[in-house]
Amino acid sequence: MKLQKNVLGRLVPAQINGEKQIPYLGIGKFKPTGNKARSPIKSCSDYPSDGNKVVKNLREALKKAGLKDGMTISTHHHLRNGDVLTNLLFDTIKSMGIKNIRWFPSASFPCHSHLIQYLEDGTIHHIEGSMNGPLGKFTSLGKMKGIGVLRSHGGRYQSIQDGEVHIDIAVIAAPTADPFGNATGDRGPSACGLIGFALADSEYADNVIVATDNLIPFPCYPWQIQGNNVDYVVQVDSLGDPSKIVSGTTQVTKSPDRLLIAEYVAQFLELTGIMKDGFSFQAGAGGTNLAFAIFLKDKMKQKGIKARFIRGGSTKYLVEMLEEGLTDYILDGQTFDLEGVRSMRENPNHVNTSPFTSYNYHGKGNFSSIVDATVLGATEVDLNFNANVVTHSDGYLLHGIGGWQNCLFAKCTILAIPSFRDRIPVILDEVTTLCGPGELIDVIVTERGIAINPLRKDLLKSVKGTTLPIRSIKEIYDEVNEICGGVPAKPKVDKNNVVAVVKWVDGTVLDSVFEVIP
Amino acid sequence: MKLQKNVLGRLVPAQINGEKQIPYLGIGKFKPTGNKARSPIKSCSDYPSDGNKVVKNLREALKKAGLKDGMTISTHHHLRNGDVLTNLLFDTIKSMGIKNIRWFPSASFPCHSHLIQYLEDGTIHHIEGSMNGPLGKFTSLGKMKGIGVLRSHGGRYQSIQDGEVHIDIAVIAAPTADPFGNATGDRGPSACGLIGFALADSEYADNVIVATDNLIPFPCYPWQIQGNNVDYVVQVDSLGDPSKIVSGTTQVTKSPDRLLIAEYVAQFLELTGIMKDGFSFQAGAGGTNLAFAIFLKDKMKQKGIKARFIRGGSTKYLVEMLEEGLTDYILDGQTFDLEGVRSMRENPNHVNTSPFTSYNYHGKGNFSSIVDATVLGATEVDLNFNANVVTHSDGYLLHGIGGWQNCLFAKCTILAIPSFRDRIPVILDEVTTLCGPGELIDVIVTERGIAINPLRKDLLKSVKGTTLPIRSIKEIYDEVNEICGGVPAKPKVDKNNVVAVVKWVDGTVLDSVFEVIP
Repeated sequence: MKLQKNVLGRLVPAQINGEKQIPYLGIGKFKPTGNKARSPIKSCSDYPSDGNKVVKNLREALKKAGLKDGMTISTHHHLRNGDVLTNLLFDTIKSMGIKNIRWFPSASFPCHSHLIQYLEDGTIHHIEGSMNGPLGKFTSLGKMKGIGVLRSHGGRYQSIQDGEVHIDIAVIAAPTADPFGNATGDRGPSACGLIGFALADSEYADNVIVATDNLIPFPCYPWQIQGNNVDYVVQVDSLGDPSKIVSGTTQVTKSPDRLLIAEYVAQFLELTGIMKDGFSFQAGAGGTNLAFAIFLKDKMKQKGIKARFIRGGSTKYLVEMLEEGLTDYILDGQTFDLEGVRSMRENPNHVNTSPFTSYNYHGKGNFSSIVDATVLGATEVDLNFNANVVTHSDGYLLHGIGGWQNCLFAKCTILAIPSFRDRIPVILDEVTTLCGPGELIDVIVTERGIAINPLRKDLLKSVKGTTLPIRSIKEIYDEVNEICGGVPAKPKVDKNNVVAVVKWVDGTVLDSVFEVIP
Repeated sequence: MKLQKNVLGRLVPAQINGEKQIPYLGIGKFKPTGNKARSPIKSCSDYPSDGNKVVKNLREALKKAGLKDGMTISTHHHLRNGDVLTNLLFDTIKSMGIKNIRWFPSASFPCHSHLIQYLEDGTIHHIEGSMNGPLGKFTSLGKMKGIGVLRSHGGRYQSIQDGEVHIDIAVIAAPTADPFGNATGDRGPSACGLIGFALADSEYADNVIVATDNLIPFPCYPWQIQGNNVDYVVQVDSLGDPSKIVSGTTQVTKSPDRLLIAEYVAQFLELTGIMKDGFSFQAGAGGTNLAFAIFLKDKMKQKGIKARFIRGGSTKYLVEMLEEGLTDYILDGQTFDLEGVRSMRENPNHVNTSPFTSYNYHGKGNFSSIVDATVLGATEVDLNFNANVVTHSDGYLLHGIGGWQNCLFAKCTILAIPSFRDRIPVILDEVTTLCGPGELIDVIVTERGIAINPLRKDLLKSVKGTTLPIRSIKEIYDEVNEICGGVPAKPKVDKNNVVAVVKWVDGTVLDSVFEVIP
């Protein structure tokens, strides 16, 4: 495999699965040319005039869609670890004797380890999309036939829009749908909140199949997916296990270290003045992030400050802020708990967004760069503020990028991370896999102090005279190495065998994931 | 000008404004090939990262958009006869010395007679879009440089989507917008309800300018127009005259004849059993249609019947039905009065739709064919149930097609029309301009009786034994001719000079409008 160094010195393949690649060129340096992908013009005369697109079952729909060897099939991951539809889909594809599918999910989860048999027997050629857990491990061990391609949520939209990935058949799990194909995620027995990750699929795929376990009379509203983009509707017994689709509760961290990190982040926003009337922030659903939101909420209440908007993934903590009038809007990309689902269904100010509105870098702007502060995690960071979210320090690919890369464009990007995990330092001289260039990462908050990127002179100035525990990243690095007994060993990988690549938000190749030697 | 006969025997030009045309082939007979139009891939790196796209004024925005001679500029007509933005737009274009613009409005109104000077001096080459009133008359007299092209709302979407019309610059009047370009019509001093007619423009135009007189902080929600499709935002003093944008009240007819027609239509739906639990209907905002809705409402209440959805143009009468629980949803394409605007803003079940969802014939189905009954008007019908909505019997082009052609696809299409107007019969042996093929028109309801299209044997059967005044169309025709003193004179037109054409919903040419000899 021919590898080349990109502008950050990372080794990346010149070709991936037979297609020529552009190595990462720098933030905003790659200028796309040409036009968006096109889909075929259709005619109403070829669709049922009564609007009823229901066909017998998934097999029938796949047949009508012209399923063939080597096609690209897409799915979304809003059902998370409760998804049974995708497993049913590939059982069906297998039973039809089809081979060499490129599976293009927005993400995969441990529940999809059922599909390892199809990766082994050639039904699935390779996965383009996040591989959380077992499928990532399978890939890391060099067992997947093709090379995995990891993209951010925005990068996935970009790749479809730009024609990099042409979807032959999109299969969209819809917690509620009507016979015309209008679909929503905010209600029904398998409610997951929203299904916006399937938006690009519905817009650009040649064939779109909506599968639902809650078929209602036309119109299904809201139509998060528009029936006008849908070819076939299929009823299934159940899309999945609701208790795994959304958790009833989301757990706030109890770790004193994580609580301290959360408190530091909230203090940082307060004391730098980022937290002010009309501001905006984004925080995920991890335990530390939830704690941060709770701390921030207290500070906002104390000072009588109201946000203009909060970006979800939403949880009951964000919903409470909306309902208590601490923000005008939640702009949500996915709902992480049942309260998030309820709020999205009931509250017009809990707005569903999509990778198009929020993250697509090849658009006329997107929401992520408008956000004042975004609080993210990472598996590793390095002394240049570069960060990793997909592999662990042992080299195993165990996580997806999600919206993480896209969120780096916020006005202030904060990584809230413990300085070490299981006695392995999190701050390294070099990250195992580069997912986010350091120039976009402004602040690293650990339980041992806060490091500000030297590029952000404005932030360095704004913390002067505050009580914030500001330190250099090198200082924290040295301290942690001492505690953990030195710099950790590099992962044992085969640098000649790329098992997956990390794309940047513009479709260029940022880094490679190499085969792990166990 | 070379004319050819289409399948219905209407003379249509082989070329329009230099572009080759396909004559009408029959319902569903023209099968589009190829792919949808593409727009250029953009990059966030070329847009302000803080999301602020506001530029100084309209002139600046047009300059940045690269305005040049011969370009296509689009506008929407949701401001109706209160629109001042479009006049300001062309004043600006004129002041920049630009010539030969193809103006592509979704419709024009009497307030746009200001633009006749620009049609005369060559600033505007020709209009593609409805020409209600003065601009239509100007065109009829052969004064426009190019040939006018009349399309339905769905046909306009189709023409943009299919690449028949490439919009260089879309200028979207937005009653409320944010600096990112998200825009809504349901609030603000110039609120008009929704601005969905500009959807295709925002999706496909090379450059999109949003002009607003109510700029609010990001996010403007709902985002009927998505900022991700917008290049520039411009603040203007006022978009128009609110009292002309939406009327405070809509007038129900007081004419005994029209009331009788309305009553007959309601009776028809009741006695044929079309009015049943879960049914759907569409009715416009004319005085007869309003009266029909009121009669139907009474019947629904009497029988305890609830509709699944009503299609707008909404008025306070439809809003009352929604609020009284007589329908689950209003699926609305435009709001005709202030109550419609309020309801759309406040009631999640008052849903805004677009020509994409409702009318686009080159999609995977649309809403119009799902509707059980639609009640429309016409200027003329003929003995074969063909109908005209754009010209009067004197040949003058005075009205647009609107959604009329698209609505013909309903399960039961009813024309509710007086049998004569100003002593001129409305039922003719042949319509002046053919806008809707008779095979799609099922029922003609006049004050002298109800004529059912012989093709609809099912409807003929369903009225048997009812008290409905069913007659043949010929019988009504003869009676009216006798009253009016014979068959009316044909309009005096120059059959060698086509001033405008009527496109069918699939982009083929259905008929021509000829120059009137005054």
